Amino acid sequence: MRSREESLTPVTVIGLGLMGQALAGAFLRAGHPTTVWNRTAAKADQLVAEGAKLADSVKDAVAASPLVVICVTDHDAVHRLRESIADVLDGKVLVNLTSGTSQEARETAEWAAERGAGCLAGAIMSIPQQIGTAESLILYSGPRSAFELHEASLRNLGEGAMYLSDDHGLASLYAGAGVSLVWSILNGFLYGAALLGTAGVDASTFDPFAQQYIATMSGLLSGYAQQIDEGSYPAPDATIDTHVAAMNLLAHESESLGVNAELPKFFKTLAGRAIAEGHGGDGYAAMIELFRKPSPVKA
Amino acid sequence: MRSREESLTPVTVIGLGLMGQALAGAFLRAGHPTTVWNRTAAKADQLVAEGAKLADSVKDAVAASPLVVICVTDHDAVHRLRESIADVLDGKVLVNLTSGTSQEARETAEWAAERGAGCLAGAIMSIPQQIGTAESLILYSGPRSAFELHEASLRNLGEGAMYLSDDHGLASLYAGAGVSLVWSILNGFLYGAALLGTAGVDASTFDPFAQQYIATMSGLLSGYAQQIDEGSYPAPDATIDTHVAAMNLLAHESESLGVNAELPKFFKTLAGRAIAEGHGGDGYAAMIELFRKPSPVKA
Repeated sequence: MRSREESLTPVTVIGLGLMGQALAGAFLRAGHPTTVWNRTAAKADQLVAEGAKLADSVKDAVAASPLVVICVTDHDAVHRLRESIADVLDGKVLVNLTSGTSQEARETAEWAAERGAGCLAGAIMSIPQQIGTAESLILYSGPRSAFELHEASLRNLGEGAMYLSDDHGLASLYAGAGVSLVWSILNGFLYGAALLGTAGVDASTFDPFAQQYIATMSGLLSGYAQQIDEGSYPAPDATIDTHVAAMNLLAHESESLGVNAELPKFFKTLAGRAIAEGHGGDGYAAMIELFRKPSPVKA
Repeated sequence: MRSREESLTPVTVIGLGLMGQALAGAFLRAGHPTTVWNRTAAKADQLVAEGAKLADSVKDAVAASPLVVICVTDHDAVHRLRESIADVLDGKVLVNLTSGTSQEARETAEWAAERGAGCLAGAIMSIPQQIGTAESLILYSGPRSAFELHEASLRNLGEGAMYLSDDHGLASLYAGAGVSLVWSILNGFLYGAALLGTAGVDASTFDPFAQQYIATMSGLLSGYAQQIDEGSYPAPDATIDTHVAAMNLLAHESESLGVNAELPKFFKTLAGRAIAEGHGGDGYAAMIELFRKPSPVKA
């Protein structure tokens, strides 16, 4: 950490929800001159007590610093700020950490660029308590030059600052891919815990087995990734036909035991559709062709 | 590995599908006197060429060895063998590696016990190519004494021989919990690859990010397991309400991009039901209560 005497980049944080407060707090603790603004000013009280400057308007807040972080409720909230700050954007770097779709991120970046600002679109993959620590992960996409210019400051939000690409949409897409893995693993684990719970096995007993199994499975993903990129899905292990037979068995088992059978049934619906499209003899990676297409319209 | 001169336990393998052939082959290569039987005798040709003895009947096959491994198509196929082998079971250890439900495993074990045989119910978590190698994993449940008596022989099917419990149903339940994690991770990965594919990111580029994210997530499972076992679901990270907002965003993103939105929508359906039951302010582990109940009947 640098000494406070060195001059750190002045920063502004717009939006002081739980996450915005965590971001501003991390900047303050690292020694950045920090300006904040929130629609409801009272949310700034604690930060002001810690040394932050509360701007009178969002325009003043943006004008105060070369590096401006926006973390508001959603894309509509970003939209509502636009008119107020358009005139003071020239030469700034705007870091948009507001949750939204890839298209929304690209649109905000384009709007900022037209007003002379560089823009990084970021996705926060951490909880507020992790911000400013080694555990935090924030993904950034946009011009590499803007990231490199402010990388040291952004790392004060946490060690895990990962630059992805100059496509502003990528932070959001990586975040979506990441959380879908989170929900997948959580649901798989909870379902497994429910299944084993019927035989009196507690979740903490299942846990080390689950972790070992997840690690083994994770190690196989590189092979599946290669099949996907090559568009060829050999099945030296198990065909989709074989998988569906096992899904059927598990759905039947779940129903017999009175636990929720929706997870294996959902898997069976997806894989069954791949079979209907002729992929029954292929390996599981062939399912990528189904995921690449819009969901079928329900009859 | 012992020298071939030492006398290894004679073994019998009933059922010579791909997996049964792999099992018998591994026993043979380890030096076990190996008897085999299959409804269609021709499937034994290769094994006989390698030194296996083909029995004239399934009864003779079972009579030939103290350790008998059954790996047939399904529980019904086990049932069809019963009458033929009932008289020669006394004193044997039967290892039932046939895929089936926990209840089916318990029922076969009970039937065998009544005829004087010990029974282990096993679940093969590996592909035929892995049998006999360090990569194989086979789960066993049933009397610990039967497992310990034949542990050395069973390890010749692969290093990963894991004894679970005296409840014959557990091998099948652990297997179900394990494969549900496999399908969860595969679908999450394929969906993520499809999402990122819309921005030109290939699956092999996504892979290391996915593996890192999976490892981080896996490390959090112990905390969720503890919450499940304690029946208390605090949310220092994110509430189910917050998760559902993110699922909504991802479903919307998927539809905008023309990729399959069924995965985030399925997650949203499950989590939305937990909210309807009053768990919106709880952490994700509260979803265990939903998984423990039968699937709701579709209207």
